[in-house]
Amino acid sequence: MTSPKTSLSARPVPPTIRDVAQAAGVSLGTVSKGLNGTGQLREETRARVRSAAERLGFRPNDLAQSLLRRRTFTVGLISTDRYGRFSIPVLEGIEDALGTARMSVFLCNGADDPARERQHIESLLAKRVDGIIVTARRADPRPPLDLVDGSVPILYAFAQVADVDALCLLPDDLGGGRLAGDHLIRAGRARIAHVTGPVDFEAVRHRRDGLKQAIMEHGLTWRPELVISGEWSEAWGREAVARLLATRQTIDAIFCGSDQIARGAVDALRDRGIAVPDDIAVVGFDNWEIIAAATRPPLTTVDMNLHELGRQAGLRMLDLIDGGGERGIVRLPCSLVVRASCGQGDKQNTGQAADRPLS
Amino acid sequence: MTSPKTSLSARPVPPTIRDVAQAAGVSLGTVSKGLNGTGQLREETRARVRSAAERLGFRPNDLAQSLLRRRTFTVGLISTDRYGRFSIPVLEGIEDALGTARMSVFLCNGADDPARERQHIESLLAKRVDGIIVTARRADPRPPLDLVDGSVPILYAFAQVADVDALCLLPDDLGGGRLAGDHLIRAGRARIAHVTGPVDFEAVRHRRDGLKQAIMEHGLTWRPELVISGEWSEAWGREAVARLLATRQTIDAIFCGSDQIARGAVDALRDRGIAVPDDIAVVGFDNWEIIAAATRPPLTTVDMNLHELGRQAGLRMLDLIDGGGERGIVRLPCSLVVRASCGQGDKQNTGQAADRPLS
Repeated sequence: MTSPKTSLSARPVPPTIRDVAQAAGVSLGTVSKGLNGTGQLREETRARVRSAAERLGFRPNDLAQSLLRRRTFTVGLISTDRYGRFSIPVLEGIEDALGTARMSVFLCNGADDPARERQHIESLLAKRVDGIIVTARRADPRPPLDLVDGSVPILYAFAQVADVDALCLLPDDLGGGRLAGDHLIRAGRARIAHVTGPVDFEAVRHRRDGLKQAIMEHGLTWRPELVISGEWSEAWGREAVARLLATRQTIDAIFCGSDQIARGAVDALRDRGIAVPDDIAVVGFDNWEIIAAATRPPLTTVDMNLHELGRQAGLRMLDLIDGGGERGIVRLPCSLVVRASCGQGDKQNTGQAADRPLS
Repeated sequence: MTSPKTSLSARPVPPTIRDVAQAAGVSLGTVSKGLNGTGQLREETRARVRSAAERLGFRPNDLAQSLLRRRTFTVGLISTDRYGRFSIPVLEGIEDALGTARMSVFLCNGADDPARERQHIESLLAKRVDGIIVTARRADPRPPLDLVDGSVPILYAFAQVADVDALCLLPDDLGGGRLAGDHLIRAGRARIAHVTGPVDFEAVRHRRDGLKQAIMEHGLTWRPELVISGEWSEAWGREAVARLLATRQTIDAIFCGSDQIARGAVDALRDRGIAVPDDIAVVGFDNWEIIAAATRPPLTTVDMNLHELGRQAGLRMLDLIDGGGERGIVRLPCSLVVRASCGQGDKQNTGQAADRPLS
């Protein structure tokens, strides 16, 4: 381990327990008893210790205390690729939950580099973290974290892992797809195309299956030929609309696998003079405010509630640290945010349109 | 301080230095000497200690070591509002620089709440962090971090602070504005409008001043009536274009204060059949890939190089911890990323157009 330079700085050195002992004219043990409120001590001595500590600005040292307790009240957070739009709310949610329990979060960016991740893990274990949370979404499940001794609880948040025993929190993408389909059908749409991302993403397959379930449950016809997969981009959304229209199939709605795709689709429809939502309704996925709200018209879209997912991850980590043994994949619900791209859905939602699907 | 629950878990307890001493049949002091390579010890004893430590999976404990060294090799990172598009690259850069020096980062989100920030600071000081970096941009300078004893070095990255003595790293917004103006003028544009954000942001004033400098240096006329301020949004970009065109002033370029504004402006121009860049060239600010690359045509834009700014913040923090005394505001250069929204600027950049401005 390379050690950073260690020359002395000109800054004041924080006072130690020895300084307090000297100032109060007592032993180290007496300072410890006096500050911790433990052991037998005359009230006058206890007061002298506390007043000396306060005068010197002595801070009870978490490090020394955690050595005694064998708890450090810290959790490592490993992100396995660059922080992005999705990891931020997860991270904020984790911090919310742990901060409330006075736990601190060590941030480690693996930068998609196994060697760097290994180094982070070593460093976290040397710091005796109480637990490790792994985050970052990708197409394939990641390998489980390689901990030699298994002494530290691990949890995966918004990350899939090739270990059936691991605790793994994921959004319910299938439920999200159902929400979108159900909303469109209740708004009177019956020929729903699905423009989505690469099929090697499990989320892509789940969202499609959710749409299919909604369509079947409403007694409508599932049309696999209206499902097309491409990239996670606006450009793909535009291209997909061109392809769909070229087939001359009738469609009255498009459920898009992401807000970026949806924005591209809406732009392409407007370029052709096709009205959204009157001619074709559009629902996105992600509720990425910066995209969804700026689209013309603003996107109705599925929200994965990632902040809440992060918060749940933090709470479950506290439980694991406390000896809890929850395992397996936990799916947390998505919700639908209604804007304008498929009409005033919040009103129609409460109606009976679902019983009389138009076609 | 509320303490989390402390019931024992079923997980194996990590071995301690005592376990190693017992296994090697030596004293605690001998284990310490054996593992640290210090003191006088027979080679055979040293080997026995090391082999026992390895067999037990004993990890040299950073906590115990840092108590001796008075260094924890940790830095606190306080973000004073929600993480956003701008804080992520700064954070990644900081982590890059500190990770290389084997320092770990404690993440603290102040969530724009002074009480929560105060609690984070207390927690960081109790953990004896070696330094604190504060980040998050806002219109007004923030108050300096309230540290009672001044024992910990502080640095502000992409954050302004009302303390002239503080070390504060900021992008050179004025230089960025000059880059944009210079690029447009070299591309043959002479009547450049500026559509930007709220003037209470120092960055808004600096970017405008940079554009003005470029215009004056090229011997063109500065037209304050072509500068209009509004919100940081696409909607404002669209509205601003409508307003500019309504004045019937001739313009051949728009420098926008953000990529979101630029995207709105480009959309509004396309809606009116005005060609970008042929009729009106557009330059954005931020190089926010998701916006800049998706715009039609993709945006030429100013990049604040926030990852590098973060990296510089990390390096300077190492220097402060080491006793360095750098103070004041440090401005780091922006750069221009050329896409398509003002023509093939990279070719014209090398030409002599600047000597013969069109008007």
